[in-house]
Amino acid sequence: MELEGVEIEDTFAEAFPIKVARVLITAVNEKWAMEAAKETTGFGTSVIMCPAEAGVDKIASPEETPDGRPGVYILLCTFGYKALEEQLLARIGQCVLTCPTTAVFSAIKPEESEKQFNTGFKLKFFGDGFESEGELDGREVVRVPIMGGEFVMEKNLGAKAGVAGGNIFILAKDQMSALTAAEDAVSAIMEVEGTITPFTGGIVASGSKPGSQKYKFMHATTNEKYCPMLKDKIEVSELPPEVNGVFEIVINGVSEEAVREAMRAGIKAAVKVPDVVKITAGNFGGKLGKYQLRLKDLLGL
Amino acid sequence: MELEGVEIEDTFAEAFPIKVARVLITAVNEKWAMEAAKETTGFGTSVIMCPAEAGVDKIASPEETPDGRPGVYILLCTFGYKALEEQLLARIGQCVLTCPTTAVFSAIKPEESEKQFNTGFKLKFFGDGFESEGELDGREVVRVPIMGGEFVMEKNLGAKAGVAGGNIFILAKDQMSALTAAEDAVSAIMEVEGTITPFTGGIVASGSKPGSQKYKFMHATTNEKYCPMLKDKIEVSELPPEVNGVFEIVINGVSEEAVREAMRAGIKAAVKVPDVVKITAGNFGGKLGKYQLRLKDLLGL
Amino acid sequence: MELEGVEIEDTFAEAFPIKVARVLITAVNEKWAMEAAKETTGFGTSVIMCPAEAGVDKIASPEETPDGRPGVYILLCTFGYKALEEQLLARIGQCVLTCPTTAVFSAIKPEESEKQFNTGFKLKFFGDGFESEGELDGREVVRVPIMGGEFVMEKNLGAKAGVAGGNIFILAKDQMSALTAAEDAVSAIMEVEGTITPFTGGIVASGSKPGSQKYKFMHATTNEKYCPMLKDKIEVSELPPEVNGVFEIVINGVSEEAVREAMRAGIKAAVKVPDVVKITAGNFGGKLGKYQLRLKDLLGL
Amino acid sequence: MELEGVEIEDTFAEAFPIKVARVLITAVNEKWAMEAAKETTGFGTSVIMCPAEAGVDKIASPEETPDGRPGVYILLCTFGYKALEEQLLARIGQCVLTCPTTAVFSAIKPEESEKQFNTGFKLKFFGDGFESEGELDGREVVRVPIMGGEFVMEKNLGAKAGVAGGNIFILAKDQMSALTAAEDAVSAIMEVEGTITPFTGGIVASGSKPGSQKYKFMHATTNEKYCPMLKDKIEVSELPPEVNGVFEIVINGVSEEAVREAMRAGIKAAVKVPDVVKITAGNFGGKLGKYQLRLKDLLGL
Repeated sequence: MELEGVEIEDTFAEAFPIKVARVLITAVNEKWAMEAAKETTGFGTSVIMCPAEAGVDKIASPEETPDGRPGVYILLCTFGYKALEEQLLARIGQCVLTCPTTAVFSAIKPEESEKQFNTGFKLKFFGDGFESEGELDGREVVRVPIMGGEFVMEKNLGAKAGVAGGNIFILAKDQMSALTAAEDAVSAIMEVEGTITPFTGGIVASGSKPGSQKYKFMHATTNEKYCPMLKDKIEVSELPPEVNGVFEIVINGVSEEAVREAMRAGIKAAVKVPDVVKITAGNFGGKLGKYQLRLKDLLGL
Repeated sequence: MELEGVEIEDTFAEAFPIKVARVLITAVNEKWAMEAAKETTGFGTSVIMCPAEAGVDKIASPEETPDGRPGVYILLCTFGYKALEEQLLARIGQCVLTCPTTAVFSAIKPEESEKQFNTGFKLKFFGDGFESEGELDGREVVRVPIMGGEFVMEKNLGAKAGVAGGNIFILAKDQMSALTAAEDAVSAIMEVEGTITPFTGGIVASGSKPGSQKYKFMHATTNEKYCPMLKDKIEVSELPPEVNGVFEIVINGVSEEAVREAMRAGIKAAVKVPDVVKITAGNFGGKLGKYQLRLKDLLGL
Repeated sequence: MELEGVEIEDTFAEAFPIKVARVLITAVNEKWAMEAAKETTGFGTSVIMCPAEAGVDKIASPEETPDGRPGVYILLCTFGYKALEEQLLARIGQCVLTCPTTAVFSAIKPEESEKQFNTGFKLKFFGDGFESEGELDGREVVRVPIMGGEFVMEKNLGAKAGVAGGNIFILAKDQMSALTAAEDAVSAIMEVEGTITPFTGGIVASGSKPGSQKYKFMHATTNEKYCPMLKDKIEVSELPPEVNGVFEIVINGVSEEAVREAMRAGIKAAVKVPDVVKITAGNFGGKLGKYQLRLKDLLGL
Repeated sequence: MELEGVEIEDTFAEAFPIKVARVLITAVNEKWAMEAAKETTGFGTSVIMCPAEAGVDKIASPEETPDGRPGVYILLCTFGYKALEEQLLARIGQCVLTCPTTAVFSAIKPEESEKQFNTGFKLKFFGDGFESEGELDGREVVRVPIMGGEFVMEKNLGAKAGVAGGNIFILAKDQMSALTAAEDAVSAIMEVEGTITPFTGGIVASGSKPGSQKYKFMHATTNEKYCPMLKDKIEVSELPPEVNGVFEIVINGVSEEAVREAMRAGIKAAVKVPDVVKITAGNFGGKLGKYQLRLKDLLGL
C-alpha cells in the first residue's frame, strides 16, 4: 500500500481504554491560555511514571468559549476515575487557579459524561469566604477573588471513557527528515478535536517494547527492531536498509473515532515531507489492547 | 523609597531552604531543548500539591554545553533529597529520554554537590543490553540506542541545598499593566543564572496567606489584603486606592545570592512599565522562613 | 451604544479603494510558510512611504492548499495595478523564491480577478533552461530547480479591487490595557478571511490627521485630539478623562464585506479586555473615502 | 580538512563593501521590539530587487539599552549613503514610529560613524508642534506625542562602511538535514554582534550564479552546479553523490571581522547536525569582491 509514494504497512495500532477529562481554559489572550494549558499538562507523557497522560487538545476560538475569550482545550487521562479526580484538583488548583486571567470550564457536556467531579466547588474554598457562586452562559460557576482579579470556574467537570495508545511510526531516510515529518504530523493532529499527543512536543523518540530480554526488573525497554543504530547488530531489524530515522507519535482521545481521525491526519501530513519512506504502527499482536486501529481502514486504502 | 518613580516598600521576602538539582538538557536545536525542559518541569508550581517545584533556569549557548549543541538549564526542587531523586528519575525518564535528539548533563559540579544521584546509570537499563558507557567532555555518560538515534546522559546528577520562596509583588493601576510588568520581570529573571520562577508563565495570580479565617480544613487561602476586588469589602486592605492589579513572582534558586539577584532583576524590569505604582514582597513576619531578602538591600537603596 | 459595557461611538470608518493580490505561500511546515509570509509583507505598513501595504491574511490548513502542505495567505495592496505587478515580482522573487521549501499559488480565482499577472512565468527564467512547466491540482505551474530542491509557482496571480483603511480605535484607561486589547483584536482579525492589519504587529500607535497645523511641508501629522499626553494641552480633546491609552487598528481587505467583518471581530475581542472604555473609528467627515463603515451597523446595535 | 567529521572545503567566501546603519529599537517588552525590528527589516533580502538588505542583528538586554528596556539591534544596508538615508527615514518612519511603545537609538557611536543622518530630527515634525527635544542617557533625542503615548528617538543615526555577501554553503545527505543545520547556523549567528543574515529566515534556498547560460536578459540565475535535482543532468556538478540538500547562508556585517566571526559560528553550529556532509562557500574566483574570507583561516584549521 502507498500514500503519495510512501509505503503504508498493512498493520494496526493497538490501543487501550482510559478515563478522560476534557477541560477548556480561557484567558485574556491565547498566550496565557496556552501557558496554563502547557503547565497543567506538563509531566504527563505516560502513566508508567507520570501521574497522568495529558496534553493540549486544540485552540478554541473566542466564538466557542463560554466567556467569549480565547481558549485552549486540554485532555487529562488516567486509568481510573479516582486518580483522574485527584489529578484534576491538583493540576487545575496549582497550575490554572494560580495563572493570570484564566477561567476553567468543562468541555464534556453533562449528558456525555460518565462521571462528574466537583473540582470547581472544591477550589472555591480558596476564597476564604469571599467566593461566590453564579451562572455564566448557562453553566454553574464559582467566582474566587484573587490578587490578579477573579478566578472563574465551572463547578463540575465531566469525564468519560476514552482511548489511549493510538500511534503511528514514521520511518525516513534520516533522523531530521523523520523529525520534521513527525513535527508536521503533530501540528496536523492539533487540529483534530478530542485528541492529544501526550509525549514531549508530541513525539516519542524512544519507543519501547514490553519487558526486557536481559533485565528482569525492567517493565519496558528499547524497541531494538526499530533502532537505526542497531540495524546491523541484531538478527531481525524491522527497518528497511535506507531508513536511518524513526519517530513514533502516541495519541490519546475521547473516542476511538477521534483517535482514528488523528492517526489519519498525522499520516497525511507526514507523507508530504521529503525522504519519508514508510509509515507503520505499533501493536502487541492484538493480545493486550481492546482497540485495533488498522492503517488501511482509516486511510481508506 | 523609590526606583524610577515607583514606590519600593521597605519590607522583605521570606524564603526557605529547599533541595535543588540543576540539569542541562541539550538537543539538535533550542526548540527541542526547550520542549523537553518545559514538559519536564510542567506540573511543578508549588510542592503544596505538585510533586516538585520546577522550571526553566536559562538558555545555554552551544559554547557552554558539553556536546556543543544548544541547551536549556532547568531546576527541580523538593523539600528532601529522597523526593528529589524520585522526581529526577521520573521526569527525565518520561520527558527527556523520550524526547527527540536530547541529551542530559549535570549542571552542578560534583565538588559543589551535597548529593549525587545515579539517575543516568539507572536509565541506561532501558537499553536492554544494547547500552554502553563512555566519556564525553570529561564526564561519565551512558549511551542508549533508541528509535530516534541515541540518548546520551551523564551517569550522575548533582544536587545541593537551595532557596525557595523568594518573591516580589507588583502593584499597578490596573490588571494589564501589572501583567505586562510581571511578564517583563519574568523575562529579566530568565537571564539570571541559577534561578527559576516556578509558577505558570512565571507569575502568581492568586497569592495566598497561610491557613484560613473561615475554613479550618484549608492550609492556604486567598490573600485578601492584596485582592483589588476586595479593597472596599474588608477593613484593612494593603492596596493603595489607585491600585487595581497585583501579581506576584515567586523565585527559587541555587543560593540566596542567586535569588536576591533575580529579585533585583525582576524589580528593575517591572518599574519600567507604565502605570506600575508600587513594589513590595511577601513575608510571614520573619517567623517561618530562614531567609529574609530585604528589598532596599538588594536594590542598594 | 454599548457592547459588553464598553461605549461604542456612533461613527464610521472611512475607507478607500485599493488594488489587492491575495497569494498563498506553502512550505514544508507552517514555520517556513510564515517566515516567507512575514519577509514578503515586511516594510509594508502604509503606501505613504512603503512600496506596498501588505500583511498576513490567515493560516491555511493543509486540506485547503493545492499541494496539501501547510500554508499562509498574504495580501499585497497598492493604489494601481502597475505598482502591484512590480511589487509581486520583487517581493515574491526576492523573499519567497529564495526561501526554503516554499511554493506560491494565486488565492484569487481567475474568474474573480480583474487582472492576472504572469509573475510565475517571469520567475521561471531563474531556472536558466532547467525550469519546466506543468500542472498541479488543476493549476498551471512552473518548476525551477534550486539548491534547496525545487521552487513551484503558479504561472498567473490574480488581483482585484479591494478596500483599504478600515479601522477601529481602542480607548482604555491606560496604555497596557489598550495594547492588550489591540493585540487581541489583531488575533481575532487573523481569523477573518481576506483581510490584513498592515501595520507593525497589526497595530498603529501613531494615528495621524491629514496635513498639519504648523508645518506646511507635512502631509500627515499626529492626531493630537487622541493623544493622552496632550489632553490638557489642547482645547478640544476627543478623549474621556479616564482614558490614557489609545491604539488604532487599520484593516485592508479584498472586499468591503471582509473589512466590515474584520472590524466586527476586532471590536468583539477588544471589549473583552479589562479597562477598555470606548471604541470609535477614524474618518474625514465622509469627504475623502468611498466607503463608510458605520460601527453600529456592523455590530448590529 | 574536517571539523567534527564534516568536510570543510578549502575555499573562500567573496564579499563586498556596503554601507551600514546599525539601529537599536527598544520597547515595553522584547515581543514588541522584535515586531518592530522584523517589519522594519522586511522586504530586505537582497539589493537586486529590494530597496535594502536588512535584518535583525541581535537582542539587546535591558542593561545595555539607553532607556533600560528590552531591545533589538537591526542592520540596514545599501550600496550608497543616499539610499541608506532614504531607507532609514522610510522604514523607521513607517514601521517603528507607528509601532506600540517603541523608541529608536543609534547603535554606531558618532566617533565610529562615517556618516550621521538626522532621521530623528526629521521625524519629529510628525509632532505638529507638540514635539520636544531633550536628552536621554547622554544622547540628544526628540519626543513626539502619539496616540499610544510618546515616541522617543535619537536625533542622529550613525552609519559606516561594512561588508556584504559573506556566506557559507551547507551540504547534507538530504533536504531536511541541510535545513535543520542551516536553522541552527542562523541561530548561532544571531548571537554574533554586528551581523545579519538578510534572507528570509536567514537562509537562501536558491543560490545563484551571475548571468545566465541561456537567457541574456537575466542578471542572475540558479546555481545549477549545487542543485541536487540537476546532479545527473549536467556535466559537472559540485555535489558529492550522497548530497541531496543544499542551503546557503548570506551574512552582512559592520566589519570584515564581524562577518568572519559569524561564518565561524554558523559553521560550528551546522556541523553538529546529523547527516551534514560538507561545508563550502561561494565566490567568483576572487574577481568581483574586495574581501576573501577563507574557511580554513577563520576556523583555524
